[in-house]
Amino acid sequence: MSGADVVVVGGGLIGTATAWRLAQAGLDVALVVGERSLAASRVAAGMLAPVTETTFTERTLLALNQASGERWPTFADEVVDASGGPSGLRRGPTLSVASDADDLARLRTFADYLQRQGLAAERLTSRECRAHEPLLAPTVRGGLLVPSDWSCDNRVLLEALTTAAERTGVRTVTGFVKRVESDADRVTGVTLVDGTTLAAGSVVLANGSWAAQVEGVPDVPVRPVKGQVLRLDPGRLPGPGLTVRAFSRGNEVYVVPREHGREVVVGATVEEQGFDDRVTAGGVYELLRDARQVIPLSAEYAIAETNVGWRPGTPDNAPILGPCALEGLTLATGHHRNGVLLTPVTADVTAAYVTTGVLDPVAEPFALGRFDREPAPTRRLRTAGSVA
Amino acid sequence: MSGADVVVVGGGLIGTATAWRLAQAGLDVALVVGERSLAASRVAAGMLAPVTETTFTERTLLALNQASGERWPTFADEVVDASGGPSGLRRGPTLSVASDADDLARLRTFADYLQRQGLAAERLTSRECRAHEPLLAPTVRGGLLVPSDWSCDNRVLLEALTTAAERTGVRTVTGFVKRVESDADRVTGVTLVDGTTLAAGSVVLANGSWAAQVEGVPDVPVRPVKGQVLRLDPGRLPGPGLTVRAFSRGNEVYVVPREHGREVVVGATVEEQGFDDRVTAGGVYELLRDARQVIPLSAEYAIAETNVGWRPGTPDNAPILGPCALEGLTLATGHHRNGVLLTPVTADVTAAYVTTGVLDPVAEPFALGRFDREPAPTRRLRTAGSVA
Repeated sequence: MSGADVVVVGGGLIGTATAWRLAQAGLDVALVVGERSLAASRVAAGMLAPVTETTFTERTLLALNQASGERWPTFADEVVDASGGPSGLRRGPTLSVASDADDLARLRTFADYLQRQGLAAERLTSRECRAHEPLLAPTVRGGLLVPSDWSCDNRVLLEALTTAAERTGVRTVTGFVKRVESDADRVTGVTLVDGTTLAAGSVVLANGSWAAQVEGVPDVPVRPVKGQVLRLDPGRLPGPGLTVRAFSRGNEVYVVPREHGREVVVGATVEEQGFDDRVTAGGVYELLRDARQVIPLSAEYAIAETNVGWRPGTPDNAPILGPCALEGLTLATGHHRNGVLLTPVTADVTAAYVTTGVLDPVAEPFALGRFDREPAPTRRLRTAGSVA
Repeated sequence: MSGADVVVVGGGLIGTATAWRLAQAGLDVALVVGERSLAASRVAAGMLAPVTETTFTERTLLALNQASGERWPTFADEVVDASGGPSGLRRGPTLSVASDADDLARLRTFADYLQRQGLAAERLTSRECRAHEPLLAPTVRGGLLVPSDWSCDNRVLLEALTTAAERTGVRTVTGFVKRVESDADRVTGVTLVDGTTLAAGSVVLANGSWAAQVEGVPDVPVRPVKGQVLRLDPGRLPGPGLTVRAFSRGNEVYVVPREHGREVVVGATVEEQGFDDRVTAGGVYELLRDARQVIPLSAEYAIAETNVGWRPGTPDNAPILGPCALEGLTLATGHHRNGVLLTPVTADVTAAYVTTGVLDPVAEPFALGRFDREPAPTRRLRTAGSVA
């Protein structure tokens, strides 16, 4: 039986960045990495979009997203220094476009909301949209240019973070954590599915949608929200120059180009299907339809990859950070649609909590405790009714 | 340097079946097999459709297609006997449907033509169509049921033919033929790309779209006609029970189920793109769109494979069979859209020609000599103009 000061569960962006930060703080860190090809960190499009991703009802989350967005430039520089490789960061902007009158009305309401929140976004005519992105369909009615919404090649970032973590002394253990072990409500380590045990007084749970499957921990209300994502290769054809988002007949689509021009990510379906891993005819059809509606030339691109990922969704779409009832267990999961964006702030506050026992105020609204409520009467009735 | 009585170039259905027939006739046969995963024989949907595949202008080809269709039951039985495995044959019917008034008018004209040709086809109402195939969209306007158009799982057939050929003594040589060697206009063997030489007084060219790339042979007017094909997996959902073909807004789509129910082939684009091997966003989009228009439930199927194949097209869409100016070289290529269907008759007439020197009358209209014509004046003018 081997041990460490801290075991970090999950080899995606959140887990790897957190392990790196903990090792920087001088701790002996073991990072348990499952099957990385399944990680949302590899499937995601990598939008860093606190502004275009916000909704009217998620102002608390907006503050956290903005806090992480502000950390991104420094974080990316540190990753480059520590890994010797690129971070994947691509400094925006993002263009949100409307394809019909309904979309345009929706976009105008959204622009008004952003203005009231003091968030920078420039309203563009159809002609102005196409001046920024010549590949846009002439049918685009108008748009919103958001300079602060960037993107990151999340696969490049994951590779760089892995290198940074290893160079800083993080030990990688391959496997899946079956159980967090504890004694008198105090963490003592983890046991892997293959029977391996790792002793540690501190465990960080950063395994995304799989957090709810780990035994021996308090109930973590995380569920997999399936997303199908395509990667297109323009080949010799031009690709879009910036991230384009659109609502097309009620479906949201985003088209995220990479700096090197050989990859354009098109995402994503949003499906409550558990861990269903099927790339479906209907999902791919809708993505291709919506992408060509916005960028007609995309029909000529090659399909390089079709992937399924699972966003770790929570009841309020916000992450779950910090302590829980089990002493020594720190949570860093539930990042839903914002995992890449939230990597810097999550790694910072999680590592700080593990080393100091103090949760950064920016993370306080996102502790597990927010879900501790008396069940509402209607829920009790439903529960009682379920025996019928 | 090794040798054989006959070298068959091409490890697809046509080449393998021909090699098998030649070995059955007592000849020492070497079969040169390139990269089987690229063979049209593996990508094809496997329709055996002399009737629904016919057009008003291709009556000569229709006769050959029917001749091969008639040989199919016996051929399949022989394959089963010789290989010990299944042949992949699935005995029809095929349902051709119309989705709108234009399609319906077109289908009626086609039905009239079939009737004049004495080809059996039953006109069905929308309700009758759905009685035959409950998964059809209610929007289907009517259809044509063709009992004699069957299908074959071409991958299963290729495996069975390979086993049959090996058991009958065919030797497989892995590689690509660079050149057919000859001496005084008489074949002496082949040289592979890796420099290997195989001596033989008889060579059969059955390498589909690649026939035109072989050096040392007369000009064979074969070109690759790119087709993108999808394989869907219904999983636990029901799949269609019969082959469904449709014209949807001018696009033809076909949906071919396999007996085991875990694969539904959706094809195919028709593109003059040379050997372009890209699965494109536009191609897949159109196939998925047209498939769901006919069978809405297909949207829920998983995408198991996306493939590109190249039909060996010819100027008149008919195959090139039999002798050519180079003595000892027999052609068996150019099967375009009908390769699976034409496998039995092609193997029979090609093996017979090699062993007897007599071309079966059924194959006579398809000899290379039919393309020997004086260039038309307009072509001469175009050639002269091309120096400008």
